[in-house]
Amino acid sequence: MGLAVRNASLDGAEVGLRCEDGAIAAVGPGVEPRAGDEVIDGTGMALVPGLVNGHTHAAMTLFRGFADDLPLMEWLTGHIWPVEKRMDDDDVYWGTRLACVEMIRTGTTSFWDMYWHANATARAVEDAGVRAVTAAPLIDDSDPAKSQRACADAERSLERISGAGGALARPGLAPHAIYSLSERSLRWVAECSAELRIPVQIHLSETEDEVEGCLAERGVRPAAYLDQVGLLAPHTVLAHGCWLDRDELELIAERGATVVTNPVANLKLAVGRVFPYGAARQAGIEIGLGTDGAGSNNSLDLLSDAKTFALLQKNEARDPAAVTALEALEIATGQRSRLLGGRALEAGGPADFLLVRTDDPELALGALDAGLVYAASGTVVDTTVVAGRALMRDGVVAGAEEVVARARERARRLGLQPAGPPG
Amino acid sequence: MGLAVRNASLDGAEVGLRCEDGAIAAVGPGVEPRAGDEVIDGTGMALVPGLVNGHTHAAMTLFRGFADDLPLMEWLTGHIWPVEKRMDDDDVYWGTRLACVEMIRTGTTSFWDMYWHANATARAVEDAGVRAVTAAPLIDDSDPAKSQRACADAERSLERISGAGGALARPGLAPHAIYSLSERSLRWVAECSAELRIPVQIHLSETEDEVEGCLAERGVRPAAYLDQVGLLAPHTVLAHGCWLDRDELELIAERGATVVTNPVANLKLAVGRVFPYGAARQAGIEIGLGTDGAGSNNSLDLLSDAKTFALLQKNEARDPAAVTALEALEIATGQRSRLLGGRALEAGGPADFLLVRTDDPELALGALDAGLVYAASGTVVDTTVVAGRALMRDGVVAGAEEVVARARERARRLGLQPAGPPG
Repeated sequence: MGLAVRNASLDGAEVGLRCEDGAIAAVGPGVEPRAGDEVIDGTGMALVPGLVNGHTHAAMTLFRGFADDLPLMEWLTGHIWPVEKRMDDDDVYWGTRLACVEMIRTGTTSFWDMYWHANATARAVEDAGVRAVTAAPLIDDSDPAKSQRACADAERSLERISGAGGALARPGLAPHAIYSLSERSLRWVAECSAELRIPVQIHLSETEDEVEGCLAERGVRPAAYLDQVGLLAPHTVLAHGCWLDRDELELIAERGATVVTNPVANLKLAVGRVFPYGAARQAGIEIGLGTDGAGSNNSLDLLSDAKTFALLQKNEARDPAAVTALEALEIATGQRSRLLGGRALEAGGPADFLLVRTDDPELALGALDAGLVYAASGTVVDTTVVAGRALMRDGVVAGAEEVVARARERARRLGLQPAGPPG
Repeated sequence: MGLAVRNASLDGAEVGLRCEDGAIAAVGPGVEPRAGDEVIDGTGMALVPGLVNGHTHAAMTLFRGFADDLPLMEWLTGHIWPVEKRMDDDDVYWGTRLACVEMIRTGTTSFWDMYWHANATARAVEDAGVRAVTAAPLIDDSDPAKSQRACADAERSLERISGAGGALARPGLAPHAIYSLSERSLRWVAECSAELRIPVQIHLSETEDEVEGCLAERGVRPAAYLDQVGLLAPHTVLAHGCWLDRDELELIAERGATVVTNPVANLKLAVGRVFPYGAARQAGIEIGLGTDGAGSNNSLDLLSDAKTFALLQKNEARDPAAVTALEALEIATGQRSRLLGGRALEAGGPADFLLVRTDDPELALGALDAGLVYAASGTVVDTTVVAGRALMRDGVVAGAEEVVARARERARRLGLQPAGPPG
């Protein structure tokens, strides 16, 4: 038997919803549970599609609150990279489980992840019950001599993810960035991903340095270079894109790649430019929203980042009407990108949805979309359902205490946390 | 008897805390409750000073999610002002009570309010149990002929606030802005506030238009003009200050006035400039943080705005180290302004404090200050205490349901809300 919801509100009407085999079997007025269904009373709650976090490094929850407020390179070379060398599968597993608890609590049902030991990420995702595309970063220090080995590692990682994952964790390829990879490796990813039909994620045009380096070395801007190596495709997520220009945006729109903007991480790392969303929308780009890793955000609450996204764009355009709440919400739920695959709640679609408490003060008055984007944090989410399974009910994620305890152990093991109580 | 806390963490040590007569009688290791005290078990929680919201229009919760994403003047003249004309004491009372529920939930123990029917604000504040400076806006359309009546109204409002308030609501004066008031009224406020020793709050330098208008009309920039009329004083809060220049910042620092920055509202209304905090800090300015009204934010969660403040400043300075989490937290708790009066938790100080759940995933790892500012929303607050009285325990504000229901009634009465369920 499946899961069913009664008496919830959807687009202002009172509806029921019934799940079967991980999909929505029926939703609408008069839809009733079947005998044996697990039934959730949706009184005082609204149905909302699950949020899609388009770019993160989930296991980096372990680094949160460790060495904050430092210049980027000092943070990476002095603090993050030395610890990452010591990390093992179990560190990544429990860091990812901690991230999943937070994402489930705040309404994220699916995420795109790029991190080491991606097989452990896949295992954590399956155990937590959320959906993810998991991929290990591919880096060869732009050295063609290291490319063969790096690509072989990536291929092995794909097999290991497939072995560890199940119905929820899909394997992906994650070439780190154009400045950390040789052209040989980038072309290998393009061929491999096309052949195996698996998604790709890459950091693109995050900093001005990256653009200048690409121009100096290749004579073209980053998106044009990515197109030359065959990676500007409908199955590619481009994370960041802050420094893309109008020609690049049009090229990306033509090729059908998705740009995932990470407004909070961009501010925290002070990249100095806001993603040119107005121009991107005009070009007709597929778009999504990401938190980036907890090391550089430090939150995984995507509703909070949807607000920052909308507000930054209003300010940038000097127009309070530049982005609407509904638009921000559609972006945060993955409905503005075929690749991210979000959709309105309808029969036949995946049973990935939330119940939010419309009697909470933040949502009690006015339009629901404005309430969710501008007034609420992710804690208005009462129930999180992925593939027809309730991962949180009444605001409680089962097993969260154990996950917190194990993540603390792993952080201590890595020397990230004093042995005493936090604070 | 009073309130006491056991086994909480403060600056990494396990401590107790005891309140008497609204103040902290003792805090530190080994401090135990007295017989008859109401005792809160602080296991797994940290003590934090209460947050101080330095600028808001609390009753505007009623406007939230109503007519969002519109240009400023269309929003004000087409939607907000016509409704404000119809508002009465009870509308303001219940709108403010709703704001107080949200502030208590998210850890704000004190706020500075500017709104119509300020006597009703004072009554709501007393009933909710939080602290506030409440003041009615003073506006005379820059018409000296209307000044006498406007000032008489302000004087009467002061008396009515004093009559309605008690120990928690302090009366203040709120000249709206230099562009909406005659010089006569501004000078009257300066004299009256100095004579009666009551605080003043005014919007200053929020938009470029205001600066240009002041230069055209007075030949000086806004802060210099405010100084000429005698309002740049240690008892004055200047809300916004986005367009202040270096000379103005130095003048404000010299006079000891406090600037309250409202980063989220500034972005939402797209004022086009980020408050020049780096220069303000260099000048030695007293500073605080505000949400502004829920109509233009739309949240009252000050921790969330502390994050936006810190991130915007990092980005503006193109330096991730430009503001630290501790600095942002001190600003949000009113500890960087004598007028706002926040202070570290110590014996003899007011018993305004929070217990935050350090076992929540967002605070489970790393430094507490970074966790609070970057990772958490206000919902990590478990307990909110004002003047030695627990207004929230276990995350529950007593009577919140009734407040939500009554606020919905008032919003419907004002035509702000469809009669059916929200969403």
